[in-house]
Amino acid sequence: MASKSLAIIAGVGPGTGASIARIFGKAYPVVLLSRTPSNYEPVVKEINSSGGQAVGISTDLSDSDSVKAAFDQIAQKYPGAGIAAAVFNSSGSFARKPFLEVTEEEYSNSLETQATGAFRFAKRTLPLLLQAKGTSPHPPTLIFTGATASVKGSANFAAFASAKFALRALAQSLAREFGPQGIHVSHAIIDGIIDIPRTKAYTVAHEDGKLSPDAIADSYWHLHTQPRTTFAFELDLRPYAEKW
Amino acid sequence: MASKSLAIIAGVGPGTGASIARIFGKAYPVVLLSRTPSNYEPVVKEINSSGGQAVGISTDLSDSDSVKAAFDQIAQKYPGAGIAAAVFNSSGSFARKPFLEVTEEEYSNSLETQATGAFRFAKRTLPLLLQAKGTSPHPPTLIFTGATASVKGSANFAAFASAKFALRALAQSLAREFGPQGIHVSHAIIDGIIDIPRTKAYTVAHEDGKLSPDAIADSYWHLHTQPRTTFAFELDLRPYAEKW
Amino acid sequence: MASKSLAIIAGVGPGTGASIARIFGKAYPVVLLSRTPSNYEPVVKEINSSGGQAVGISTDLSDSDSVKAAFDQIAQKYPGAGIAAAVFNSSGSFARKPFLEVTEEEYSNSLETQATGAFRFAKRTLPLLLQAKGTSPHPPTLIFTGATASVKGSANFAAFASAKFALRALAQSLAREFGPQGIHVSHAIIDGIIDIPRTKAYTVAHEDGKLSPDAIADSYWHLHTQPRTTFAFELDLRPYAEKW
Amino acid sequence: MASKSLAIIAGVGPGTGASIARIFGKAYPVVLLSRTPSNYEPVVKEINSSGGQAVGISTDLSDSDSVKAAFDQIAQKYPGAGIAAAVFNSSGSFARKPFLEVTEEEYSNSLETQATGAFRFAKRTLPLLLQAKGTSPHPPTLIFTGATASVKGSANFAAFASAKFALRALAQSLAREFGPQGIHVSHAIIDGIIDIPRTKAYTVAHEDGKLSPDAIADSYWHLHTQPRTTFAFELDLRPYAEKW
Repeated sequence: MASKSLAIIAGVGPGTGASIARIFGKAYPVVLLSRTPSNYEPVVKEINSSGGQAVGISTDLSDSDSVKAAFDQIAQKYPGAGIAAAVFNSSGSFARKPFLEVTEEEYSNSLETQATGAFRFAKRTLPLLLQAKGTSPHPPTLIFTGATASVKGSANFAAFASAKFALRALAQSLAREFGPQGIHVSHAIIDGIIDIPRTKAYTVAHEDGKLSPDAIADSYWHLHTQPRTTFAFELDLRPYAEKW
Repeated sequence: MASKSLAIIAGVGPGTGASIARIFGKAYPVVLLSRTPSNYEPVVKEINSSGGQAVGISTDLSDSDSVKAAFDQIAQKYPGAGIAAAVFNSSGSFARKPFLEVTEEEYSNSLETQATGAFRFAKRTLPLLLQAKGTSPHPPTLIFTGATASVKGSANFAAFASAKFALRALAQSLAREFGPQGIHVSHAIIDGIIDIPRTKAYTVAHEDGKLSPDAIADSYWHLHTQPRTTFAFELDLRPYAEKW
Repeated sequence: MASKSLAIIAGVGPGTGASIARIFGKAYPVVLLSRTPSNYEPVVKEINSSGGQAVGISTDLSDSDSVKAAFDQIAQKYPGAGIAAAVFNSSGSFARKPFLEVTEEEYSNSLETQATGAFRFAKRTLPLLLQAKGTSPHPPTLIFTGATASVKGSANFAAFASAKFALRALAQSLAREFGPQGIHVSHAIIDGIIDIPRTKAYTVAHEDGKLSPDAIADSYWHLHTQPRTTFAFELDLRPYAEKW
Repeated sequence: MASKSLAIIAGVGPGTGASIARIFGKAYPVVLLSRTPSNYEPVVKEINSSGGQAVGISTDLSDSDSVKAAFDQIAQKYPGAGIAAAVFNSSGSFARKPFLEVTEEEYSNSLETQATGAFRFAKRTLPLLLQAKGTSPHPPTLIFTGATASVKGSANFAAFASAKFALRALAQSLAREFGPQGIHVSHAIIDGIIDIPRTKAYTVAHEDGKLSPDAIADSYWHLHTQPRTTFAFELDLRPYAEKW
């Protein structure tokens, strides 16, 4: 273990979050936040049984108290530990729906889980990211996972796009405020279907036409390794055959 | 009065909203929504006393019931009337603040008033905009007022930029869904200080260095007059001497 | 005639250029530049016979000497006249072609006619635009016509998109340099098929599915009328049913 | 040496190009193109003396014949070899100048060296990139080096921004055409001063305030290693303290 600082990933299912946990778990103890234990348990077990250190905490990012409790638990388990890398990977739900059928509650929930959820995560992690400066060879890093809808408000995606645009604004604002303080804030635009259990049934026209969670995780790790002289804020990831 | 369809403006103070009301009031009866009667009363009086028709309704766009009550009142006063033009002009508050000092409530409120408020306004106006097709020489028009923060998440503007990005996503999504149905949805990026009573004290380096509310209103009216062959979705407005 | 300052339009065929000439011809003597006299002769005749003043000059914008000769001729015909409005409307050719079939000459020509042609036009008109300050109720205006390819480099459009991106960069740079000097520089993104004789055969899925040249011209005139407090740099124009 | 396919870098001085050559030189024989032998000779020597294989060819990318001669020489030296990675790194000159002082020749040259130079490079390398498919564990990769001016046309930068915008359009168009054919085309926005001998005298406000050529090269190598499921098209690189 190169450092006592932690990596923390919010939004972990059997896809991208797990891949991110595995790769950051080679360098740091990792904390996985997800609403449902079944989401993080397999990867926690896998990391712990292969020489890493992982812990999962059931957390609802749309609930302020739940987030507070999670970070209290982290502080208790790793007293004084900073955070070397924090990844907000909550995917949100993107029900495609004619606008007039979207309820106020659905719209509001979308903002709540994506944007305000990310706000809560950033508020809790940034002080610990600042505290971790110098404890790892790499600058403390905060990465947000975006989507096609982060830069394009398509028809029937009002709720999801509003939330993803808001998340990107948050990421930009944090990058501009905390970059000069040595924190690397990034935003990744995931433009395509990720190859995870939930999307197995989705057919795509081309072989290798879905994004690889491991390759996404590799790019997140690359972002983490960039020195402060050379930070990337944004990169867009898509399968070779994706239309864009 | 060219038409029985209405114009409705949400977010009316003594600045841009009033100018928009004045210009749309030359062609349509106008309904002004604002939290405080003192915000719309002067312009309502002015329009009514100069041959137009205007009514103000105290409305809190962050309160679903308040919005419902406003539209019920409109339906009662103008039974069966469609909407020829709807403008969401709620400015929001943009307290510039270090991120770690922004409370969850402030962040959440910003999304609530700008993005969810606009959602409520769109949900109520779109059916009436669709209904107004053919009642005016101009296609029914829904315009959202954006800001510099709609396209740039600056340091210390996380809450405001998140809300304004979300609003722009909403506008894009609606333009793509309702454009093909003949509704003109637009988004204006107001990039600079508007010359209104509240900003009198702000000094700018150049003469004419603030945006004119009347000129903004002229551009909104121009958007409204565009035929469906030639819709502008977005335009950016700024003073000649503004850095961008 | 409201003013002795001129309007000048480069790139005039029977479509947008002619519509722009007609509308600016109501306020200013207009000078039309086009390679082929047959392109501008009908609209010149039309304007002159309906009370306006128009002159056409055969000009090849890709030839420096030809451009010089055109402006010498203007100076002779209108000694001392400034320019109130200048529009670069050269469409360029956009042969859709697999990249490996595009010749260096085609690529180079595309840059030459669009970007360097616009450069020549801007170099000649800007001193005359600066000179016209105060001679018209509206700030001197320089408008560039862009396309979908100004903001998106699609497959098989390398030559056209390179030129249109370059043109947009030129427009941005001039807006930032000459805006503070009181010149209104704008860029219009024409996103769709324009309804002109040459495109009559193109079928589109929806009625009114092509852009109206007159409506484009109306928007250009609106840009020209904006006061310096409230300049739009960019607007995107497309038919209501266009996918984007 | 993992492969007989080559890496080729156009635009090699003592800065970024040399760093890129060093890192790609660990996996492939590298060919360096530069106008002046003194630009590539030191790094060629360095790579050859440390177990790699490098060759420099004096090439003027603005001269079609010179480019042809270079590729003929490559074909002779490495008969039948494909290209695993090609990097267009020509920086161009970015004289900051009031627009009215920029000569047509300067404007035209800027387009010629950046955009048409890149076109020539792409035309020569793409067939060899296609040919290299399957010869390396990584998809064949074509990377273009952009700048702040690739996405912003600042005042007094008309010539440089026009060329860099055009280059970005070219890169986008190629990514969309050749991505589905398995070629990874990327564009990197270098937003800041690179720490190279030529910029030693430039002072920046913060320690580590200049981009590291080695870190840029690391990111280019990361792009090269991405599998075709997960290609990044664009990333922006800047020092932590850079304003943007």
